[in-house]
Amino acid sequence: MKRRSFLLKASAAAVAGTAMAACSKKEQAPAPSAAPSVTTGNPAIEWRLASSFPKSIDTIYGTAELFANRVKSLTDGKFNIKIFAAGEIVPGLQVLDAVQNDTVQVGHTAGYYYYGKNPAMAFDTTVPFGLTTRQQNAWMLQGNGMKLMREFFSDYNIVNFLGGNTSAQMGGWFRKEIRTVADLQGLKYRIAGFAGAVLSRLGVVPQQIAGGDIYPALEKGTIDAAEWVGPYDDEKLGFQKVAPYYYYPGWWEGSAQLSFYVSAKEWAKLPPLYQAAIETASLEAHTQMTAKYDHVNPQALARLLENGVKLRPFSREILEACFKATQDAYAEEREKNPAFKKIFDDWRVYRNNEAAWFNVTEQAFAQFSFQHKL
Amino acid sequence: MKRRSFLLKASAAAVAGTAMAACSKKEQAPAPSAAPSVTTGNPAIEWRLASSFPKSIDTIYGTAELFANRVKSLTDGKFNIKIFAAGEIVPGLQVLDAVQNDTVQVGHTAGYYYYGKNPAMAFDTTVPFGLTTRQQNAWMLQGNGMKLMREFFSDYNIVNFLGGNTSAQMGGWFRKEIRTVADLQGLKYRIAGFAGAVLSRLGVVPQQIAGGDIYPALEKGTIDAAEWVGPYDDEKLGFQKVAPYYYYPGWWEGSAQLSFYVSAKEWAKLPPLYQAAIETASLEAHTQMTAKYDHVNPQALARLLENGVKLRPFSREILEACFKATQDAYAEEREKNPAFKKIFDDWRVYRNNEAAWFNVTEQAFAQFSFQHKL
Repeated sequence: MKRRSFLLKASAAAVAGTAMAACSKKEQAPAPSAAPSVTTGNPAIEWRLASSFPKSIDTIYGTAELFANRVKSLTDGKFNIKIFAAGEIVPGLQVLDAVQNDTVQVGHTAGYYYYGKNPAMAFDTTVPFGLTTRQQNAWMLQGNGMKLMREFFSDYNIVNFLGGNTSAQMGGWFRKEIRTVADLQGLKYRIAGFAGAVLSRLGVVPQQIAGGDIYPALEKGTIDAAEWVGPYDDEKLGFQKVAPYYYYPGWWEGSAQLSFYVSAKEWAKLPPLYQAAIETASLEAHTQMTAKYDHVNPQALARLLENGVKLRPFSREILEACFKATQDAYAEEREKNPAFKKIFDDWRVYRNNEAAWFNVTEQAFAQFSFQHKL
Repeated sequence: MKRRSFLLKASAAAVAGTAMAACSKKEQAPAPSAAPSVTTGNPAIEWRLASSFPKSIDTIYGTAELFANRVKSLTDGKFNIKIFAAGEIVPGLQVLDAVQNDTVQVGHTAGYYYYGKNPAMAFDTTVPFGLTTRQQNAWMLQGNGMKLMREFFSDYNIVNFLGGNTSAQMGGWFRKEIRTVADLQGLKYRIAGFAGAVLSRLGVVPQQIAGGDIYPALEKGTIDAAEWVGPYDDEKLGFQKVAPYYYYPGWWEGSAQLSFYVSAKEWAKLPPLYQAAIETASLEAHTQMTAKYDHVNPQALARLLENGVKLRPFSREILEACFKATQDAYAEEREKNPAFKKIFDDWRVYRNNEAAWFNVTEQAFAQFSFQHKL
């Protein structure tokens, strides 16, 4: 399997972050709990959080703000986590490294951005035909997911916490309709990581282009298609003007989990109260981020459709071919990568069991109810 | 619309809870954060939490334990919430009243158990053909849901917090197959609340039977069918032995939210730090409960199927008739109940917009991916 480690979504975030690095750093609002009657014997601590995202991606960047504000309010304002956008301390794609080498105490990023270090990183975000948001939560919180990922990340000086989920993403923007696997042949598609590797098996030529360069590339026809996130985030970049066909589903991102990566060295130094604050505040921010996406995406999709966007499902033929190519990619990686194999073998059984259950009452309810307007 | 306010699921919980009232009250384990180096100037507070559930429903009862333990660990062990199962202080169906009149400071229950007081209560849990778990979270956390429900509950001396979600429930256990609307005629079905009222429009005779009495009633044929929750909770009651047809979806519970109801009077007395602890701990417990159900249900369903349970979808004809009857019930209630109308009008638009969006990439992903084993 070809490794395409340079993940463009993150890269774009980094570029945008750099552009915004001149912005003054946002001061945290005073926490409501910092009332004069409340004091603690705990130490004052200041941490720096490096985000892989620019402030303009408010859904994700805002999740780190929620997290930091809650930690502050839970510690009488004594534990301050200061947030830095992508590019302010390190580029968006170097957040994991910055935590690993203790440049910052915590990062807000996505495991699959570091797919080039080890494809097993992707299980901390998502892999093709993987878990939905609720299934990923179940695997991480109640199954073996968190245990396996903590074990994996311990080699990187990292203790990981859930940091949000975008939920199922769109398949992206296309200049022309694609109907068959033959239409994929030679298609210049801005897509990276595991999905790029899978699609290259089907003749796609994956492209690596930073976020700000996608629009002109689509306009000129230098590329034929590009994937980004979903309606709310995509709308800001204006792709609909140059590539009117908006495909779904993004089968490589049935959900996409973000994470807070805390330095294991720094984690061990925290008082138990501060550790508890991080545990609970991260899960609160995690849940709020999914709710936020689920709140803003319907409105954004409606606006896009009003503006003439043409919504198209990937054909069954294309999905079947992508599924087969994904299976082949998993089999190859499993063979040569023991860390991948260890996590994959647990994950695969979990994923199949979850699919069998969700296919019953959740799916029957959704399929009927979503088609009926009240 | 006939009011069937006596909600049997809660009733059963209350009965089971009474049976367990003799059990000694569980002492909280010492919180890990109560280290000697950590002190605060905050007061020691002890609260009593009345649950609508017996300890045997570990998925829901355990959510209150998670909540209380986290509040304790976030307050240096000074804010103790002691949990009482259904029947220990008040019966499971009187938890809201116990908070309203300050018998306890907090309750863990479901709004729709109090449908008899006002059907608008049901929006805090679920209503027929309503929101899925993620949609309910979005409406409550990012839409107007929390605002509207807080306003509504302020008349009851209650500040409400999210307290878990069972997610989509099953349609229940039937002695014989049902295929058409005609098969519903005269069907004695243990089902309550809004769903019972809707089904009675189609000739069903809703039955009110406490949890412990369902099994013998099904065995003798006193009733023809009974709904409970989903595979994990249902399995414990053994219905499969006397009613082998297990129907889905439970269209009246596309999700089912639990809530923590805090006395508004007591809430106002809390230091800001303790308020922050309740806010974050409740949302953490909320997320953990859904993950728990999503973790245990697939395994329980697999065991049930191994034991010969016959899984059946409700026919399209039946679902269409139920949808129509639901619309009629909403229209009637909206006409005569201003509190219902106010919430419904916001909720309805939200629900339709969410359905339109979820029907795109989430559904396309789920429909394809869940049918393909990796």
